[in-house]
Amino acid sequence: MRMSKMHIKTLREIPNDAEIPNHILLLRAGMIRKLASGVYGFMQLGYRSLRKIEEIIRQEMDNAGGLEISMSAVHPAELWQESGRWFAYGPELWRLKDRGGRDFCLAPTCEEVFTDIVRNEVSSYRQLPLNLYHIQYKYRDEIRPRFGLMRSREFIMKDAYSFDRDAEGLDMSYHRMYDAYSRMFERCGLTFRVVEADNGPIGGSNSHEFMVLSDVGESDVAYCGNCDMAATSERAESVDDMAGDDAELSMEEVHTPDKTTIEDVAALLNIPTKRTLKALLFVQYNNNWEKEGYVAAFLRGDRELNKIKLVNALGLPEFALEFADEHTMGEETGCVGGFTGPVGLKNCVIVADSEVLGMKNLCAGANRRDYHMLNVNYGRDYKADVVTDIKMLKEGEPCPKCGKPVRYARGIEVGHIFKLGTKYSESMGAFYKDENMEDHLLVMGCYGVGVTRTLAAVVEQCHDDDGIIWPVSVAPYHVIITIVNNEDETQAALAEKIYGELLAAKVETLLDDRDERPGVKFKDADLIGIPVRITVGKKAAEGIVEYKPRREKKIEEMAAGDAALKAIKLVKEES
Amino acid sequence: MRMSKMHIKTLREIPNDAEIPNHILLLRAGMIRKLASGVYGFMQLGYRSLRKIEEIIRQEMDNAGGLEISMSAVHPAELWQESGRWFAYGPELWRLKDRGGRDFCLAPTCEEVFTDIVRNEVSSYRQLPLNLYHIQYKYRDEIRPRFGLMRSREFIMKDAYSFDRDAEGLDMSYHRMYDAYSRMFERCGLTFRVVEADNGPIGGSNSHEFMVLSDVGESDVAYCGNCDMAATSERAESVDDMAGDDAELSMEEVHTPDKTTIEDVAALLNIPTKRTLKALLFVQYNNNWEKEGYVAAFLRGDRELNKIKLVNALGLPEFALEFADEHTMGEETGCVGGFTGPVGLKNCVIVADSEVLGMKNLCAGANRRDYHMLNVNYGRDYKADVVTDIKMLKEGEPCPKCGKPVRYARGIEVGHIFKLGTKYSESMGAFYKDENMEDHLLVMGCYGVGVTRTLAAVVEQCHDDDGIIWPVSVAPYHVIITIVNNEDETQAALAEKIYGELLAAKVETLLDDRDERPGVKFKDADLIGIPVRITVGKKAAEGIVEYKPRREKKIEEMAAGDAALKAIKLVKEES
Repeated sequence: MRMSKMHIKTLREIPNDAEIPNHILLLRAGMIRKLASGVYGFMQLGYRSLRKIEEIIRQEMDNAGGLEISMSAVHPAELWQESGRWFAYGPELWRLKDRGGRDFCLAPTCEEVFTDIVRNEVSSYRQLPLNLYHIQYKYRDEIRPRFGLMRSREFIMKDAYSFDRDAEGLDMSYHRMYDAYSRMFERCGLTFRVVEADNGPIGGSNSHEFMVLSDVGESDVAYCGNCDMAATSERAESVDDMAGDDAELSMEEVHTPDKTTIEDVAALLNIPTKRTLKALLFVQYNNNWEKEGYVAAFLRGDRELNKIKLVNALGLPEFALEFADEHTMGEETGCVGGFTGPVGLKNCVIVADSEVLGMKNLCAGANRRDYHMLNVNYGRDYKADVVTDIKMLKEGEPCPKCGKPVRYARGIEVGHIFKLGTKYSESMGAFYKDENMEDHLLVMGCYGVGVTRTLAAVVEQCHDDDGIIWPVSVAPYHVIITIVNNEDETQAALAEKIYGELLAAKVETLLDDRDERPGVKFKDADLIGIPVRITVGKKAAEGIVEYKPRREKKIEEMAAGDAALKAIKLVKEES
Repeated sequence: MRMSKMHIKTLREIPNDAEIPNHILLLRAGMIRKLASGVYGFMQLGYRSLRKIEEIIRQEMDNAGGLEISMSAVHPAELWQESGRWFAYGPELWRLKDRGGRDFCLAPTCEEVFTDIVRNEVSSYRQLPLNLYHIQYKYRDEIRPRFGLMRSREFIMKDAYSFDRDAEGLDMSYHRMYDAYSRMFERCGLTFRVVEADNGPIGGSNSHEFMVLSDVGESDVAYCGNCDMAATSERAESVDDMAGDDAELSMEEVHTPDKTTIEDVAALLNIPTKRTLKALLFVQYNNNWEKEGYVAAFLRGDRELNKIKLVNALGLPEFALEFADEHTMGEETGCVGGFTGPVGLKNCVIVADSEVLGMKNLCAGANRRDYHMLNVNYGRDYKADVVTDIKMLKEGEPCPKCGKPVRYARGIEVGHIFKLGTKYSESMGAFYKDENMEDHLLVMGCYGVGVTRTLAAVVEQCHDDDGIIWPVSVAPYHVIITIVNNEDETQAALAEKIYGELLAAKVETLLDDRDERPGVKFKDADLIGIPVRITVGKKAAEGIVEYKPRREKKIEEMAAGDAALKAIKLVKEES
C-alpha cells in the first residue's frame, strides 16, 4: 500500500502513563489509541497485526478440530446466576441493566453461554466430542487497568470449550488444545513456557498457563532449572521445612511492649523469625456481600501467605476474604492487633499452614496487648479447622519435585487451558445420552487465548530501542520500500518496479512515497517494525538499492531485482 | 468439510416467537441461536456467511479508499456529552457504569469516537481526505426487539466516517461511498433501492438509505413509478392540496355533543373530513427529562401526522415529544380533550401544516366541551409558531417531483449514508490547518451498513418453502455432496473423489457423510441452502451422480467429473 494514501501518525515522545515497552511502542508506532482507561482502539497497522494473530489462532483451532461460532459479548444474568458465578466472579464482572431493569453482564468468559448452547444442541453421545470456539470481545471491570493491552478492561479473547463423554475424552481434548496452543504461540514468534496454574474463578481440577517470559509480566513463575517443574507462584507447592526442637516445653507469657511485628519480637527475644507464628486475619463475606465471619491464618513468621491457596482451601472466591480490621474483630474473636495468636482465639475459622504442625515451641501473640506466648505447640495449645499448604514458594527454596533450588521469572499469561470436569454441566444440567439411552453429565474443558495481550507480548519480546521488530508471521506488512527522494524520477520509478514485483509475489508491501525527509522515513520504518526495508536512493540510476532486515544492523547494497527476490524468499520462509 | 465432524442441528418445527421467514429459517437451519431477547449467537454455518458478507464489505471499502481500524464497543460518556447526544440519543442508548461509578455506553454508532480520534490525529489539510471505517458490534436498547437479526439489541455494523476540507470534498467522499455501497449489496445478491431518508439522531443535512424491498421490511418507502423519486415515508415530501373556498366566512360555534373524532364531527355537520382541522397534542421534555412545555400540531382532518417532520421542524429528538394527556394540559393551555382547536389556545408551541394556510373556513375544536367552531381561518383567527410540511405522504397522492401517483413498498434498511457537515467537528472541536496555517472545521460524512441485518435480508430475499437459497458469494459452503448410503463403498469412494476435486479447485465443499437417512440429508441440504448439491447414489457404480442447483427444481444426471466441473464453473462465475 502507498503510505501517502494511509493514515500513519507516529509519535517521537513517550506518551503519558505508558510505562512498559510494548505499551509505549504500540502507542508511538500509531498502532493503538486510548479511548478510556483500559479501553483501546486499533489503528490501521495495529489492526492488521491483530487480525493476523487471530488468523493463526483460527487455523490452529480448526486444525485441532475446533468449530468456530460467535456468541454475544453481552450475557443475560440468568445464566450466570444458574452457575453461581453472578456472585462468585466478583466485582470484576462488569454488570449492566437494560431499560427494562433486567440484569446483564459484559462477558469476561463464556462457560455459561457455551454450556447453555450445548445443553440445547447436544443430546447424544454421537454428537461428541465437540469443541466450539469463538474469537470475541471480553470485559473485565479492572479497578486499575494498566500496561495498555496487557491489563485492559476491553480485550479480545479466543475461548474454546470442549465437551466429552468422560475424563479420558477430556484428557484427549485437553492434550489437543495444549499442542494447538504451543503451535499458535510459536507461529506468532513467541518464546514461552507452559506452567501449572491455579484455576481461579473458572474452576475445575487443573490447568496450565502459557507464559511469555518477560520482565514486565504480571505473573510470577516458579520453575526448576533441574527438572520440568514450572508453576505460577499461586499454584507452586512449597516443601515444608520443619527442623527444630523435639520436646514440647511449657507455654509461657512474655512482655513484649510495642513489639507488633515479627521482626521486632524476634529481635527482642533473640530467636529466629522462623521460630515465630505469623497471624493474618480476614473478614469473610457471603453471596450477598454481608459479613459472614472471620478467618485467621497462621504460618511460620518468615513465610509469606499465599492467599490463593488459602481461599482454595476454604472453597471461596478470592474476593470473599478481605484483610480484617483487628480492632473491629477483637471483641468477637479475642484477638488483639499486633499481638494475635492462635491460643484462645474464638469465633473464627483457623487455618494453619501444614509446616507449623511439625514445629515445636513457637512464639505467637498472646491475644493480650504487649504480650506474646513462648512455646506454643499445635495440638496441645491450639487446633486449626484446616491444615494445609498456604504459603508462597520462595526463590531458592527446594523444588517440590526434585529438591533443587527453585528459580523465579516473570511472565505474561497469553493462554490458559483448564480441565473443568462437570462443574458447569452439573450446575446447569448439561447431559448426553449414551448407547443405552442413559443420561450422563458432559465433561468439559475450556481454553483461552488473550488475543490482544498476545499482540502486546509479541511487541514486548520483539523490539529494540528504535521500535518494534515484528516477526514476519504477524507483521502488518512484510516489506517497506523507502524512497529517499520522491522527486527523483529514477528513484520513484525503480521503487514502483520493486513494489510491483513484491505485490505480484503476494508480499504485503508498503511503499513510503510520503513527502517526508529520509530521516523521518527511516525512523518510522524502524518504529513500525516492518521486517524488511528496501531503500531506493542515489544509486537507483545504477539499479542498486539497500536491503536491510529490521532485526539486523547490517545494510547490504544489491541489485533491485536481487533485493526483491531476497525479500520474497525471507517472507515465504518465515510466514 | 465432513459433516460428520461438524455440529449441525436443524429444526423441523418453526421456533417460538419467530414470525418472519429469515428469522424462522436462520433458526431452523441452525445458523443462529437466541441468547436473550434481541441477542443472538452465530453457529458455524451462519458465522461463515456473516464473515463472507464482512469480507465483501471490507473489499469494497478498501477499494473506495477506506482505511480499516477497530474502535471499542464501549464508549466513555464524556464524548457523548461533548456532542450533546448523551441525552439526545434517548433511551435506546444502552448505558452502564463501571465499578468506579463512571458512565459509559454500549456504542450504537461512533461519530464521537471517530471525531475524537481524528481531532487528535489530523492537523493538516495534507492528511485529508480521510475515510476511516471499522466493522464492530453495536448496541441499541430496543424496547421491543423482534424479527431476529432484523431488529436486535446487539448487532454488527460497518461504520465509516469521512473527513474532508469542504463541502465539495464531502460530496466526492459521499459519492464514492454511494457507489461502494451499491456494489457491496449487489455482490451480496440483494435487490435494493436507494431512497432519500431522514437523518434522525445522527444529524447532518441529507442522507440516503439502501433498502432491500421486502414485505417484512420495517421501513415504508414511497416511490414513483414515473420518475426517480424514492424516499422513506418519514422523509417523503407531501404536495399541499389546498382546493376549497376563496372567501373567509364568519367564525361560528356549533353544538357537537360527544363528537370527539374527526369522522363523527364531519358526519354530524355533513362536511368532508378534509374541511376539518385535526389537533395533536404533545408534552415536550428537556435534557433532564423534565416537562419543558407543550406542543400542538394542526393539520387537515384527513391527513396523518408525520412525527419525524414535526420534531425536525422544532429541532428536537423524536423522544422529546410524547403524546399529551389533554386533561392534564387543559388548565395551562385551554384545550379540551376531543374538542381542541387552535383558536384561543395558549402557553404552547403551535405548529401548523403548510396545507392549512391556504384552506379557508375549516371546522376545528372550540376548546369547549361539546362544541366546535365553523369557518376557522389561519391568520385571521389563529397563528402558528411554525408552519411547515408535517404530514405523511400517502399512497396514490401526487409525487412531489412529477405529480404522478406515489406508490408504497416496504423495505429493510441495510445501509444508510449521511452528509454530516460540521455537526460533530463543531461540537467537539475538530479542525485542520490549511495552506496558510488557518484553522477550519473538518467536514464529515458517515456511512453505515447493518452487517447482521444484511445477512437477514439476504435470507429474506433468497429462500423458498424448503429453506434458504444462498447466493454463491455469501453461502457458507458452495457445494454439498450428499452420499445416499454411507455404507455403500462405491458411493463413498466416488463421493470422496468428487470432494477431493472440488477442494483442489478451492470450492468450499460439504461432504454429507453423516449416518442419517437420505431424506434427512436432502431436507437439510435444502434448508441450509447450499448453492449446488451433488448426490452420489445407486448409479455410483456407473460413475453417474445427480447435479442440482439449489435455486432450480430440475435434477440432472451426469458423469461425476462433469458434475464437479459444472459446479466449479458455477462457483467461479458467481463468486
